Amino acid sequence: MKRAVVRCRVQTMSASGEVRHRPDQLAGEEPLEIRLAGRPFSVTMRTPGQDFDLVAGFLLSEGVIWDADHIRRMDYGPGVGPDGLKDFNTVEVTLAPGVALPDTSLDRHVYTSSSCGICGTASIEAVRKASHHEVKFDALNVPVTDILGLPARLRVEQTNFDRTGGVHAAALFVQEENGGLELLYCAEDVGRHNAVDKVLGRATLKGVLPLRGTVLQVSGRASFELVQKAAMSGVPILSAVSAPSSLAVQLGVEQGLTVVAFNNGRTLNVYSHPDRIRSV
Amino acid sequence: MKRAVVRCRVQTMSASGEVRHRPDQLAGEEPLEIRLAGRPFSVTMRTPGQDFDLVAGFLLSEGVIWDADHIRRMDYGPGVGPDGLKDFNTVEVTLAPGVALPDTSLDRHVYTSSSCGICGTASIEAVRKASHHEVKFDALNVPVTDILGLPARLRVEQTNFDRTGGVHAAALFVQEENGGLELLYCAEDVGRHNAVDKVLGRATLKGVLPLRGTVLQVSGRASFELVQKAAMSGVPILSAVSAPSSLAVQLGVEQGLTVVAFNNGRTLNVYSHPDRIRSV
Repeated sequence: MKRAVVRCRVQTMSASGEVRHRPDQLAGEEPLEIRLAGRPFSVTMRTPGQDFDLVAGFLLSEGVIWDADHIRRMDYGPGVGPDGLKDFNTVEVTLAPGVALPDTSLDRHVYTSSSCGICGTASIEAVRKASHHEVKFDALNVPVTDILGLPARLRVEQTNFDRTGGVHAAALFVQEENGGLELLYCAEDVGRHNAVDKVLGRATLKGVLPLRGTVLQVSGRASFELVQKAAMSGVPILSAVSAPSSLAVQLGVEQGLTVVAFNNGRTLNVYSHPDRIRSV
Repeated sequence: MKRAVVRCRVQTMSASGEVRHRPDQLAGEEPLEIRLAGRPFSVTMRTPGQDFDLVAGFLLSEGVIWDADHIRRMDYGPGVGPDGLKDFNTVEVTLAPGVALPDTSLDRHVYTSSSCGICGTASIEAVRKASHHEVKFDALNVPVTDILGLPARLRVEQTNFDRTGGVHAAALFVQEENGGLELLYCAEDVGRHNAVDKVLGRATLKGVLPLRGTVLQVSGRASFELVQKAAMSGVPILSAVSAPSSLAVQLGVEQGLTVVAFNNGRTLNVYSHPDRIRSV
């Protein structure tokens, strides 16, 4: 069941109170572990398909190979998914004789990345175990019109975007006693994962974890990594201007987190736990 | 000289043959190395600013901390830039007593990421040393109208984007003997770095490295990592629909690679080595 496009059901809501349930299609997102000489080398979140091309291009970009002859063979590894079937999410690379393995000694090669994140099923397990701020039972309930207003409220904070057109943004809002959403923190960064880390880190350093009753609005897409970051901080609603990935929705469902996407100010789609957003 | 927004000069070209030189502003992009207990833990490419927030958020997302008290202190490290001044690109984190260090043993934690890439000055050095397919002397010369046509030619290949709205795309074009640009390979992925890796990897496996006389068109922004991938493959021109980052432009200048961005089909900006694009 590994596909570039994944089907799902979505709840579309508008400012007028209309609620529609309809089928939708999500960009497939699954982890790919690249193994060199029998050892893990790298994991990337990717859309399944052209996996051997991806591996060759990655090894080229990393300077491990610079010619087709440098790869002796590539095979899918023996990994199996939760369904017991081969998961095609591991590629074993055998380099040609004489091609040096990259130096992965700790001091030279610990580039764990917040945009890659830890990956796949193992990662979903990791989040479930590691998050100390469960969102599942957060009773936050917000009118859809308030969520629809967030992209515009984020946009006015994007001063560096105005100048460069090249930065993502994230903003954290909290529900006040009167029910309205108040802006807490906002950040911009070339990396959307960094913009989110800056906002959640500010909240952390202010000592306000877990982030109960909050909504995280982001300027781009909702990827797995962003849902993971929200889940780790106790944020119950993530709202994105653009599309969600399949794994982002899966993690939202599993973590009890409300994933909103395609929030354009007039309509939005809810992909998981829609009970937190009311139409009137 | 570390800023969220970096000034530069840009050459704007239009289909009518008009060429204008004007000042522009780029999203700042620099590496940040996060160190735990005196050892490197992670590097991320980020926009400078709110660095301690970023570090706290990253450690929260990774499950290393889940409370402000878990961090005893954060300090900028002693790293210096090429100018001999402190570079503020390293943060040393001291965790509170009793907070466990993450397990970074190789078999559990080698998530090098193609979207993070190797970073900063060290990384630019690494590319210079590691690339076996220098682009500096590639004599490719293309009319601006051909480059302006690439976003639309890429767009018709984006079939998964049509269905999901959630995937990036990359396409590689080569100059034919008659001077026109022919589409070689195209790929879509949730990660723009993966889309590029798939295209460059396909070329690698077809045995056509180095990619002399080619143009790589991408659907999103031009980040450092994408310029690096192009440079490693011998691609002389990278064209992006959206904005470039400061480090992407810097790497383009240093590698002799032509970085085109904000290519909207009617006008485009050239940020480095404009000699490869002619106005008539």
